[in-house]
Amino acid sequence: MKIAVLGTGTVGRTMAGALAGLGHEVAIGTRDPQATLARTEPDAMGAPPFSQWLPEHPHVHLAAFADVAAGAELVVNATEGASSIAALTAAGTENLAGKILVDIANPLDFSHGMPPTLNPVNTDSLGEQIQRTFPETKVVKTLNTMNASLMVDPGRAAGGDHSVFVSGNEAAAKSEVTTLLKSLGHQDVIDLGDITTARGSEMLLPVWLRLWGALGTANFNFKIAR
Amino acid sequence: MKIAVLGTGTVGRTMAGALAGLGHEVAIGTRDPQATLARTEPDAMGAPPFSQWLPEHPHVHLAAFADVAAGAELVVNATEGASSIAALTAAGTENLAGKILVDIANPLDFSHGMPPTLNPVNTDSLGEQIQRTFPETKVVKTLNTMNASLMVDPGRAAGGDHSVFVSGNEAAAKSEVTTLLKSLGHQDVIDLGDITTARGSEMLLPVWLRLWGALGTANFNFKIAR
Repeated sequence: MKIAVLGTGTVGRTMAGALAGLGHEVAIGTRDPQATLARTEPDAMGAPPFSQWLPEHPHVHLAAFADVAAGAELVVNATEGASSIAALTAAGTENLAGKILVDIANPLDFSHGMPPTLNPVNTDSLGEQIQRTFPETKVVKTLNTMNASLMVDPGRAAGGDHSVFVSGNEAAAKSEVTTLLKSLGHQDVIDLGDITTARGSEMLLPVWLRLWGALGTANFNFKIAR
Repeated sequence: MKIAVLGTGTVGRTMAGALAGLGHEVAIGTRDPQATLARTEPDAMGAPPFSQWLPEHPHVHLAAFADVAAGAELVVNATEGASSIAALTAAGTENLAGKILVDIANPLDFSHGMPPTLNPVNTDSLGEQIQRTFPETKVVKTLNTMNASLMVDPGRAAGGDHSVFVSGNEAAAKSEVTTLLKSLGHQDVIDLGDITTARGSEMLLPVWLRLWGALGTANFNFKIAR
């Protein structure tokens, strides 16, 4: 499948690399490819510059948001939550129309200090904002409740015995995303319901962040024990 | 131990019955004992009237909030979140001072319709509100992330292989509550940190409510797989 991953941070790179490894034709999108390639310093999270990552992944193509979205059958939003709407707008409403958008971002708000809070929250969610802004796109919220390494290699924690959620308005789109999740190794995919249920999965972030601190590792995930 | 459970709903009854069963001296508190006993109809959640429950639990004593709190060594807040501060104020600042308050309530807000939202949320929590209002009390937030039956009998789901969180400012209070949780059968007690981490556990409620719908049962719990 032709997949566009929007975002060149750790999450975008991890998803792009894994999806290319599964045989998909993967392009990774950024606002300004020349600027992305020109950076030589580690990013804000300490990841090496993208210009170092790209040559190590020769099957992944870098281009502008609109270019990768136009050529894709499925789009993954791996941008920062605070800039997701802007990035998707740059990708182009027409380039996203009719396609599945896998939204793995979280609306983290660092303006109140650490740990980040959420915005929107409680009566709205980033997943819903994106669905409202791009009504012709089939938004499926998923994978936002775990570390990037676990998104693509769930066996790294507890032998993969944990859960991932999907939220979206279209059953067929959720079914296709579930197939993709299982191809990445996810064993327990739980359909929470329509896109408003993204509030629930996004609101897992505050306890996730505290667990990261309490456990001293990000190599854990939520399992729904039943 | 002398324990006061505030709240005569399903959660309060379940906790009171289980703690009495473990040999604790349990009193259950309500605003107006005569009014509580006078009700002959099921409550808003469909539970039988308290006057029917009480004779089946002869070791549990019913009294007003202040009376049960005054006589207790440890207090459990099992009231509805929206009325918890009022109930605790009725219990009396002086009757709560120096004691551990196990806060198992959630600040569910039904004013926006169903499913309920949270108030406070994101930058505050019910646990923190209680701690601020009763600074001499040792508030420990716990057990609010699961169904009442699982609070007292975790083995009912997945053989008890799931997690419970504690949040609070005093290590010794959390240690005492952890001992109590283990006596109820909880195997994996995770200390999230100070009382501000109650935001995280309270914000699990929205996904819990959606999982309840998606799974068709409340007999599940979060496990932190690692």
